[in-house]
Amino acid sequence: MPTPTPADKFTFGLWTVGWQGRDPFGDATRPALDPVETVHRLAELGAHGVTFHDDDLIPFGSSDAERDAIVKRFRTALDATGLKVPMATTNLFTHPVFKDGAFTANDRDVRRYALRKTIRNIDLAAELGATTYVAWGGREGAEHGAAKDVRVALDRLKEAFDLLGEYVEEQGYDLRFAIEPKPNEPRGDILLPTVGHALAFIGSLERPERVGLNPEVGHEQMAGLNFAHGIAQALWHGKLFHIDLNGQSGIKYDQDLRFGAGDLRSAFWLVDLLESAGYDGPRHFDFKPPRTEDFEGVWASAAACMSNYLMLREKALAFRADPAVQEALRASRLDELARPTAGDGLAALLADRGAFEEFDVDAAAARGMAFEQLDQLAMEHLLGVR
Amino acid sequence: MPTPTPADKFTFGLWTVGWQGRDPFGDATRPALDPVETVHRLAELGAHGVTFHDDDLIPFGSSDAERDAIVKRFRTALDATGLKVPMATTNLFTHPVFKDGAFTANDRDVRRYALRKTIRNIDLAAELGATTYVAWGGREGAEHGAAKDVRVALDRLKEAFDLLGEYVEEQGYDLRFAIEPKPNEPRGDILLPTVGHALAFIGSLERPERVGLNPEVGHEQMAGLNFAHGIAQALWHGKLFHIDLNGQSGIKYDQDLRFGAGDLRSAFWLVDLLESAGYDGPRHFDFKPPRTEDFEGVWASAAACMSNYLMLREKALAFRADPAVQEALRASRLDELARPTAGDGLAALLADRGAFEEFDVDAAAARGMAFEQLDQLAMEHLLGVR
Amino acid sequence: MPTPTPADKFTFGLWTVGWQGRDPFGDATRPALDPVETVHRLAELGAHGVTFHDDDLIPFGSSDAERDAIVKRFRTALDATGLKVPMATTNLFTHPVFKDGAFTANDRDVRRYALRKTIRNIDLAAELGATTYVAWGGREGAEHGAAKDVRVALDRLKEAFDLLGEYVEEQGYDLRFAIEPKPNEPRGDILLPTVGHALAFIGSLERPERVGLNPEVGHEQMAGLNFAHGIAQALWHGKLFHIDLNGQSGIKYDQDLRFGAGDLRSAFWLVDLLESAGYDGPRHFDFKPPRTEDFEGVWASAAACMSNYLMLREKALAFRADPAVQEALRASRLDELARPTAGDGLAALLADRGAFEEFDVDAAAARGMAFEQLDQLAMEHLLGVR
Amino acid sequence: MPTPTPADKFTFGLWTVGWQGRDPFGDATRPALDPVETVHRLAELGAHGVTFHDDDLIPFGSSDAERDAIVKRFRTALDATGLKVPMATTNLFTHPVFKDGAFTANDRDVRRYALRKTIRNIDLAAELGATTYVAWGGREGAEHGAAKDVRVALDRLKEAFDLLGEYVEEQGYDLRFAIEPKPNEPRGDILLPTVGHALAFIGSLERPERVGLNPEVGHEQMAGLNFAHGIAQALWHGKLFHIDLNGQSGIKYDQDLRFGAGDLRSAFWLVDLLESAGYDGPRHFDFKPPRTEDFEGVWASAAACMSNYLMLREKALAFRADPAVQEALRASRLDELARPTAGDGLAALLADRGAFEEFDVDAAAARGMAFEQLDQLAMEHLLGVR
Repeated sequence: MPTPTPADKFTFGLWTVGWQGRDPFGDATRPALDPVETVHRLAELGAHGVTFHDDDLIPFGSSDAERDAIVKRFRTALDATGLKVPMATTNLFTHPVFKDGAFTANDRDVRRYALRKTIRNIDLAAELGATTYVAWGGREGAEHGAAKDVRVALDRLKEAFDLLGEYVEEQGYDLRFAIEPKPNEPRGDILLPTVGHALAFIGSLERPERVGLNPEVGHEQMAGLNFAHGIAQALWHGKLFHIDLNGQSGIKYDQDLRFGAGDLRSAFWLVDLLESAGYDGPRHFDFKPPRTEDFEGVWASAAACMSNYLMLREKALAFRADPAVQEALRASRLDELARPTAGDGLAALLADRGAFEEFDVDAAAARGMAFEQLDQLAMEHLLGVR
Repeated sequence: MPTPTPADKFTFGLWTVGWQGRDPFGDATRPALDPVETVHRLAELGAHGVTFHDDDLIPFGSSDAERDAIVKRFRTALDATGLKVPMATTNLFTHPVFKDGAFTANDRDVRRYALRKTIRNIDLAAELGATTYVAWGGREGAEHGAAKDVRVALDRLKEAFDLLGEYVEEQGYDLRFAIEPKPNEPRGDILLPTVGHALAFIGSLERPERVGLNPEVGHEQMAGLNFAHGIAQALWHGKLFHIDLNGQSGIKYDQDLRFGAGDLRSAFWLVDLLESAGYDGPRHFDFKPPRTEDFEGVWASAAACMSNYLMLREKALAFRADPAVQEALRASRLDELARPTAGDGLAALLADRGAFEEFDVDAAAARGMAFEQLDQLAMEHLLGVR
Repeated sequence: MPTPTPADKFTFGLWTVGWQGRDPFGDATRPALDPVETVHRLAELGAHGVTFHDDDLIPFGSSDAERDAIVKRFRTALDATGLKVPMATTNLFTHPVFKDGAFTANDRDVRRYALRKTIRNIDLAAELGATTYVAWGGREGAEHGAAKDVRVALDRLKEAFDLLGEYVEEQGYDLRFAIEPKPNEPRGDILLPTVGHALAFIGSLERPERVGLNPEVGHEQMAGLNFAHGIAQALWHGKLFHIDLNGQSGIKYDQDLRFGAGDLRSAFWLVDLLESAGYDGPRHFDFKPPRTEDFEGVWASAAACMSNYLMLREKALAFRADPAVQEALRASRLDELARPTAGDGLAALLADRGAFEEFDVDAAAARGMAFEQLDQLAMEHLLGVR
Repeated sequence: MPTPTPADKFTFGLWTVGWQGRDPFGDATRPALDPVETVHRLAELGAHGVTFHDDDLIPFGSSDAERDAIVKRFRTALDATGLKVPMATTNLFTHPVFKDGAFTANDRDVRRYALRKTIRNIDLAAELGATTYVAWGGREGAEHGAAKDVRVALDRLKEAFDLLGEYVEEQGYDLRFAIEPKPNEPRGDILLPTVGHALAFIGSLERPERVGLNPEVGHEQMAGLNFAHGIAQALWHGKLFHIDLNGQSGIKYDQDLRFGAGDLRSAFWLVDLLESAGYDGPRHFDFKPPRTEDFEGVWASAAACMSNYLMLREKALAFRADPAVQEALRASRLDELARPTAGDGLAALLADRGAFEEFDVDAAAARGMAFEQLDQLAMEHLLGVR
C-alpha cells in the first residue's frame, strides 16, 4: 500500500476530521477536536498541510487576546510538525446572521460585516503563509423567486470580489482567491452553481487574474455533472487554483464521503487528469467522516483519502504507460483530435471538395471508434488485473 | 384567454410541430409535416416566425436543384404569411457520421465536414434574414473517460467558432451565434453542459461579442438548476441572444414538454424575468408534442405554448404592479440589495466600526426576511385568486 | 381566499412550526416554541389538530414527574382549543445513540432501547386519542456496502413492527401504524426508500391490516417519482393511512417547503386525487418554515399551507365539474380504461379474431389521444382563467 | 483474466448486441444483426443463453409461414451451439399502436391486442424451453395528470397478469412471470416505477407465486436508488426471478452501459450479494453497445460484460474469505444484527430495565461503528491491492 508523504501535497480542513457529526436530523456524535491535536495527527499520517475557516480555529466572538493566544499555539504546532497552511477561508454560513447570505444578503449591514469578517481572516491567512483564499458562498442563494434579484445579487458579488482584490493588492499579499461553486444546499439554489457559472463570473471581475476556482467533487456531482470534464474546462481556462477532493453517491444531499468512495471510476479519471495536466497545487480533502465513526474511524478515513489517491495515481500512470493503451488511444483517434481541424485556414477549407462535396459520409459513418475496448483497458487497470 | 400576435415574437422550430414521435423505444406515430403547411398553420395561430435545421427543410443529401426548389417554395410561404425566419441552425447529430461529435469528433474529416455543412446553412440563414445562428453541440461529448481529451476537444470547439466567426465577418452577415448548452443526452456527458460553462467558453473566443447563448428550459432543469437564475446570469453577462422555451419534469430524459407544463412556478419566474429585463428577442418554443397526439393535438399544443406564455406574462405584470407586492419587496429589503455594499470605498469600510467591531450580530440575525409572505403573494397571482 | 376550519382536517407537527432552523451548515435562527403556544396559534389559524414526536413535547431525558407535568399542561391547551392529536410518532434519529439506526441498528441494545422508547410514546399517543402512529425510519440505512446486511436488517425491521403490533393489540389500543418512506438523508440510502418498497414490506408482516403508509410529498420527489402516482397505488392497496404534505424542488436535499411551493402542478393533481378518492384522514403538513423567517413568517407559512390546499381543492372540484373537461376525458377514452379488458373471459379473448388476427393495428395507432387538450384545460383551471 | 463458460449462466438479449444505435437524436449506426449469427457469436464468447422479444426474432407483421421458417432456423442454431433460451418477452412498445400503453392503454382494443400478442409469444417461449417470461411495461404510464387514472390502470394491469397467469396454468407451462420496473422513459412516469412498487403489486395478484421481478441495474439507478438494496429486498421477498445487468451513470436518460461501467462499486456490491445469496438464475445482460462502436466494439463490449462480472465475483469471494474482513465485520457488529432483537419476547423486553430505564444511552452513543475501516477493505479488494 502506498504511503503518503508531504511531497504528495495532501491537505485537510480542520473542519473535516473535526466534524462532530451534526446533521439536519441529528446531534453531534463526536466531541470537538483540538486543532493542535489535528495538526499533529495529520502530520503523523503524512499530510502536507492543514486549512481552516476562521471560526474553525478561533471560536466566533473571541476577543483579540484569545485570538492571539490561539494563533500562537496553532503556529507552534505547525512549526513543530512542518505542516503548512496553503489555504484558508471564511465561515460565512454558520451564524444566523448569514441566513440570507453574506456578500449578497439583502441587508447591506450584513454584507459589510461579511466583508470585514473575510478581510480579518485574510490577514491571518497571509500571516500563516497561505497563498490561496477560498470563497464558498453557500448562503448566497434563494428559495423564493422574488426574494433575490439575481442580476442585482451578482452586482453585489462582483463588488465583494473587487473589493477583496483591492485589499489584497494594497496589502501586497501573495494571495489568490478560489471560488467554490455548489448548486444547492443549504440554499434551495445557490448563485454560481457550477464550475462553469463561476468561471464566467470571474471573467467579469476587475482582477480576473487573481481569481480562480476551488471545485469540489461532490458539488458538481450533485448537479449530475462529470467532474473530470469540469476540471478539464477549468484547467483549459487556467483557473484550477485549488481542488476539494471527496466522494458523493449521485444527485442527493451533500455527502462529503472520503475520496474514492462514491463514484470510483470518476475518481480514477480525475486523478488521471490532474496528474496528466501537471496540476501542482494541494490535493485538499474536504470530506466528513461519517457520524457513525469514532476517532479511530476518523483517522482511518483520513488515511484512506490519501491512500486512495495514491493507488489511483499509480493506476493512472500505469494506464497511460501501457503500450496496449497507447495503441487503443490511436485506434480511437485521439491523436487526430489533437490536430487542428483547419490549420490550412478558412479559404482552404472552403475550397476543399474532399471536405464536403466529395466526402464519403457513409464510409466515414461506418468507422468504429473502438471506445469500448479502450474503456475496458482502463477498467482492467483500475481493478488491478492488468 | 389572451390571443397571440406576431408582436409577441413567438417562433417555432420546424422540427417541433413536425416531430414524428420517434423515441428510443418507439417508431413514428405521425406522418411528416410539409414545412409549407407548418408555415401556414403557425401564421394562423399568431406566430411571428419559424426556424429550422438545414435538414428539417432540405432533406440530407438533396441535390442543389432540389434544394433551390425547396427554398423557393418555402420563401413563397413566408412571403404569403409574413412569417419571419429569425434563427436557423445545423443538424450535426442525426446522421451516423456524427456519432462521435461534429466540431469535436475525433476524426478530423468529420470535423471539416461539419464545418462545411454549417457554413452552407449559414448562407441560407443569412439569405432568409436570420440574425441568430444557433449551435447545439448535442454530440460533442463522451461516455468513456479516455475517449475524449476534453481540453483538446475545447481547443477544437474554439477553433470551430473562431472559423465560423471569421466566415460570417468576411461575408458581412448580420448574424450572431447562440450556443445551446445541455448536460447529457444523447451523449453521456456533453461539453459545455450548462449556461455557465458556455458563458465561460465564449469569453475565450476570438470574437466573443458575436457569440452568446440560446438556453433551453429543460436542458438546465436536467441538471437540477434553477432556469431563471441561469437566465439572469446570462442577461447579466449580456449574452441572452435567444431562448428555447419548453417544459421538463425534473432530472430525467429530455422531455420537451409544451411551455408551462413541467415546473409551472419556474415558468412564471422566467416570464417575469424576461419581461422585467426587457428581453426583446424571439420567444422560441423548442418542444415536442407528445407522441400520443395526432395533428389536432399538435396544433393545440403549439397554441397552448403561446397562451401559457401570455397568461404568465399577464400575471407577472400584475404581480409587479400590485402595491401589496411592492410593499412585500420592501419588507424583504430588495431595495437594500440594490444599494452598493461599499459605495464609500474600501478605506471607509475598513474604518467603519459599526460594520464590524460594534455591529450587533445577534440583532441583525433576529430580523425576519418576510420571504414567505412575498412568495405567497406570487402564488396567489399565479393561481388567479388575487 | 378560502378560510380553513377544523372540518378540513388540517394538522401540523410540533416540529414544523417549531423548527428552529438548524441545518447542516448553520445554527438555529429562531428560539424554541412552547408547544402550548403552538396549540393556541394553530387553533386560531383554523387547524384541526397537532402531532408530535415524543421529544418534541417532552425533552429527551425528562424525569417521569417532568413528563407528567408537561403532558398535563399540553392537555389543558388541547382541551381549551379543541385541537385533536390524531397522530404521534417517535424520535429515533436525533440522539447520537441512533447514529446507525434504531430498529435496524447493528447494536442489539440500541434496537431494544428504540423499541422501548417507541412503546412508551405509543402509550401517550393512545392516551391523547391518536389513532395513527407514524414510523419514519430515517436512520435505518447505510452508507457502506458491507456495513448493513439488508436482508437481515429487514428481518429486524419486521420483528420490530410485529412486536409493536403485538403490544398495541394486547393493550387494545385503537391505533394503526403508518410507515413513512424516504430514499436518503440523513443516511446515504434508507431502507424502504419509496412508497412501493414500504407497501411490499407491509405485506410480509404478522398484522398487515394494522400497518399502512404515511407518504410525504418531498420524499418521493427526492427519488424523482410522481407523488400522485404513488398515492394512487397506496390507495389502490388500501394503505393510505396518513399523509405528509409539503413542497420540494426536485431531486436534492430534503427541503420541506410549505405545501404548494415546489411542484405546483403535482400538488394540484395530488389534491384532485385525495378529494376524488374520498380520503378522509388528516391533511398533515410536515414542512419547515425557511430559516430566513421570523415567527411572523412561520405563521404566515403555516396559514399558506392550508390556503394553498383549499385553493387547489376548489380548482380540482371545478375542473372535474366542468362539462368541457368531462368531454375531454371522454375524448381521451378514460371511460374505456374503466371497462374490463376481457370481461368476456380468457377463452372468448382467445377466440376473438378481431382482437388480433383481424385487428387493424395501423388504424388504431393513428387515433390521437387528445391528452394535450385535456391537460391544457387543467392548466387553465389551475391558473384561474377558466 | 477469467473466461466465461456456460456454467456461469450469462445470457444476452438479441436486442442488446443487435441494437442498431437509433437514439432520440440519431439514426442507426450499425446494420441489423442476424439472430442466428448472434447465437453463434455468443456461444463462442462463452454465453449460456439468449433471450428475445417476439419482434426481435420475428419481424412485426410476419405471416405464419415466415414465422415458422424463422423459428426453425433459430432452433437449429440453438441446437448447434447448445445455447439456451431461459427467458423471452414481448415487444409492447415499438409499434405506434402502443403509444399510450399496452395492458393499460386507454383503448380497450389495444389492450386486447397486447394480451393476444403476449400470449402468442408465450407459446413460443414455452416451446423453446424458457422458464421465465419478462414483462416490461415501458409504455404503461403518462405525461399528463388526468390522462391516466392510475388506480383504474392498476386494475387493468392486475387483470392482464391474472389472465396471463390463467393462460399459462391452463397450458401447463413451466413458466413464471418477471416484472421489470422502470421509473420513466419512454413515458414521463411509468406505472410500477421501482422494485418496491412492483413487489407490492404482485402481492395483489391472483397467482402471486407465479410472478416475481426482473430488476435492471440502470432502471433503479435512474431513480437514485441503491440497486443492491433493492435486490436484497427482492430476495427477502423471494421474488428475484431474473435480473438485468448493465451500467448507468446516475440520474439521467437510460444509458444501458455494459455491466461494470457506470457505478463500479455498486456493481461490486451487487455481485457480492448475488453470490452470497446463492442466486442461481441467469446473469442476463441488458445493455446497449454505444452507437460509436462497430461490430468489433459490440462483441468486445459483450465479452467485457461477462469478464467484469467474473472479476467482481472473484473479488467478492476473496473479500468475504479475508480474515481481516471477517474481523472488521465483527467490529462493525454485523453478527449482532443477525441476532433477534427480542427473542425473549415482548413481556421480557418490557420488563428489562437494562433495555430502557437503566440503559446508558451516552455510552452506547459513543461506540464507533468501524464502518470506514470495513469499507476501505472492500475498496482495496476491488482495486486489487489486497
